[in-house]
Amino acid sequence: MSSISESTIVWLPGGVTAVPGFTAGGVHAGIKQRKLDTAMIVAPNRCTAAAVYTTNSLQAAPIHVTRRNLADGHAQAVIVVSGIANTCTGKKGEQDAMDMAKETAATLGIDPGDVIVASTGVIGQYLPMDLVRKGIHAVAQRLDPNGGTEAARAIMTTDTRPKLAACRVTLGDGKGTQVTIGGISKGAGMIHPNMATTLTFLTTDAKVEPEHLQTALRQAVDDTYNMITVDGDTSPNDMVAILASGTAADTPLEPGTQAWNDFYDALYQVCLSLARQVARDGEGATKMFGVQVIGAADREDAREVARAVASSYLVKTAVYASDANWGRVIVAAGKTNARMDTSQASLWLVTDSDELPLFIQGEPVPVDEAKASQMMSKDGFLFRFDLGIGGPASATAWGCDLTEDYVRINSDYRT
Amino acid sequence: MSSISESTIVWLPGGVTAVPGFTAGGVHAGIKQRKLDTAMIVAPNRCTAAAVYTTNSLQAAPIHVTRRNLADGHAQAVIVVSGIANTCTGKKGEQDAMDMAKETAATLGIDPGDVIVASTGVIGQYLPMDLVRKGIHAVAQRLDPNGGTEAARAIMTTDTRPKLAACRVTLGDGKGTQVTIGGISKGAGMIHPNMATTLTFLTTDAKVEPEHLQTALRQAVDDTYNMITVDGDTSPNDMVAILASGTAADTPLEPGTQAWNDFYDALYQVCLSLARQVARDGEGATKMFGVQVIGAADREDAREVARAVASSYLVKTAVYASDANWGRVIVAAGKTNARMDTSQASLWLVTDSDELPLFIQGEPVPVDEAKASQMMSKDGFLFRFDLGIGGPASATAWGCDLTEDYVRINSDYRT
Repeated sequence: MSSISESTIVWLPGGVTAVPGFTAGGVHAGIKQRKLDTAMIVAPNRCTAAAVYTTNSLQAAPIHVTRRNLADGHAQAVIVVSGIANTCTGKKGEQDAMDMAKETAATLGIDPGDVIVASTGVIGQYLPMDLVRKGIHAVAQRLDPNGGTEAARAIMTTDTRPKLAACRVTLGDGKGTQVTIGGISKGAGMIHPNMATTLTFLTTDAKVEPEHLQTALRQAVDDTYNMITVDGDTSPNDMVAILASGTAADTPLEPGTQAWNDFYDALYQVCLSLARQVARDGEGATKMFGVQVIGAADREDAREVARAVASSYLVKTAVYASDANWGRVIVAAGKTNARMDTSQASLWLVTDSDELPLFIQGEPVPVDEAKASQMMSKDGFLFRFDLGIGGPASATAWGCDLTEDYVRINSDYRT
Repeated sequence: MSSISESTIVWLPGGVTAVPGFTAGGVHAGIKQRKLDTAMIVAPNRCTAAAVYTTNSLQAAPIHVTRRNLADGHAQAVIVVSGIANTCTGKKGEQDAMDMAKETAATLGIDPGDVIVASTGVIGQYLPMDLVRKGIHAVAQRLDPNGGTEAARAIMTTDTRPKLAACRVTLGDGKGTQVTIGGISKGAGMIHPNMATTLTFLTTDAKVEPEHLQTALRQAVDDTYNMITVDGDTSPNDMVAILASGTAADTPLEPGTQAWNDFYDALYQVCLSLARQVARDGEGATKMFGVQVIGAADREDAREVARAVASSYLVKTAVYASDANWGRVIVAAGKTNARMDTSQASLWLVTDSDELPLFIQGEPVPVDEAKASQMMSKDGFLFRFDLGIGGPASATAWGCDLTEDYVRINSDYRT
């Protein structure tokens, strides 16, 4: 939740390289047929680092390696390949992920234990390690203080566009300290809550102790990435990782201070922007929509209902058609275990400029279908659903519509 | 689970009217534009009766009425309208459902409390009660001992074909007593486990006490309807109800006897046949597939994994493409909380005549893609997934592929 006004945040271009001292780049190593497939991000010094990982029981080889490398709370570089996931690849896959860290470290003259390793793509195939090694050497030559966009492109799979966000915030620490936070994300399918959800790499020059960085990242992910859904599937490769160089200040930020809150808020805003870009870019999606649940008994209920509605096939197809077939929203909410009273529940359609009641206190309302359809044709409209029990909690989830193109993309993916 | 060989079961045509004494029919009352929309099933006498209902928090008005009417464990007739769900219709909807029972009872000269009421279709619209009343009178005139197929047609919405099953079994009671069980189902979308799943009406001439009938029905539904999935959504209208006329015998069946087991097995077979017809008729589906989970710690884990895989968008689109992108199966399994060890897990593709290993004890296997694709093009092929922990439990779930037509059907449904 934002505790300060957004006006104290200045948005910047460049993603991960918006942060002073960080460099990045992307190359085509030949893992994919034509597109960029190898990305590197390098910090100016050994950073404190944290990450949140997929909750899938199946964990890709690079996740194992990154977990071990981040156990000491430090890292300096990120290496990512896209096109092949290096998942379900047994012992060889594990060795390949370790070799990616080693090769990257050797190229940069750093410790292999300070490398974050990631990959994304088709499952069950081995990485072509000769090409991967060539790519690592090539991308190390391309590292650039303006390389954020190229790196964002190089981590894409079915994404239609690169996803970047960065901002600078002046901390309320009485000294006017400025910190910058940048990030890039990848994700278009297999996006679902209750996990890290996608590949996301964040950079900052804030000075933060590893355990506090982990806490802040966990909370920001929970409120942003864990509230978007594309298809209900989760990837064994997903992670959100952050590198904090500490060059912006001499003393670490302390939780509970105003400066900490300002830092957290900027981190939250960057994650929210990236997560919404991911939801908007859902495979085959023509629009994004929100589900705001109010009047819930507690936050978990609100989150559960919001995510269930945002991920319902039937809601998503109705959104695609801009058809206010609102019963589907209540049905999707009803399949959760959240406490609600449908005989007292209410539902509205909401846009920036309009609010249309559909179902009020358990009774249907005559609906101007043309107006409803026009509101639903807007990217970013909301369903607002009151659970009818007068509870205090609320939550918002973000999803995208389900189209013929989703099916087309996912039945063609390997061929 | 079947405890006797299937050869003692004789399959019959006619669905609900395969059972001696039962009549049924269907008419077009004008709720839908052209198709049959009103069905009635009538028993030769007041029956013991039982039902399993949707687990959705949102429950349609007819569900409330049927629950009350079956509280005494007895009923004699079923009235169903299709086209409008009578859900989210507040107090008027409740009254309309009660009026359907009253009108049916008056027409048949029975007690309104002995009528099972159901409806299915668009949510949030009131029933046109003048048309519904006309339909009830018309269908009562059409009741016929061969009316099962017509009734099965009249309960359809987006179904492409009527679903009927019936069989006769000779009970091992030392007297050669024969009982018949018949049923009709409706369902193509909003089919997901953990609920009654669809509209299903079963009839039998077995003599069974209400509480035992309820137990048998609950178990049969759990093993059949609750193991099929189309789109992960559940309907607020779904029910599986059974009427047992008792005309086949003088004394009620007692659980634990051979005769009881024979009866249960026939009931299970009828439910399995209907449930598989529903899965096969998933909206837009071109084929059905099974997910057999073996080596699970317990039955709940096996069921959870089987259903998660069968309902994964990514698995369903790969099935549509006949693409052995088997990593998606393991990923979908991994998103559950079931105990598994993916470093020891194995996966096979299985058809009636063939078995192809894809992933064995945590390592990918070189796959003949052409052969895999050919196996996956067969209706009813299986993924067999061993969770890798040497557990004793197994379960099979059934789903269908996800196609562009699913999207088309569900973005057009109201228009």
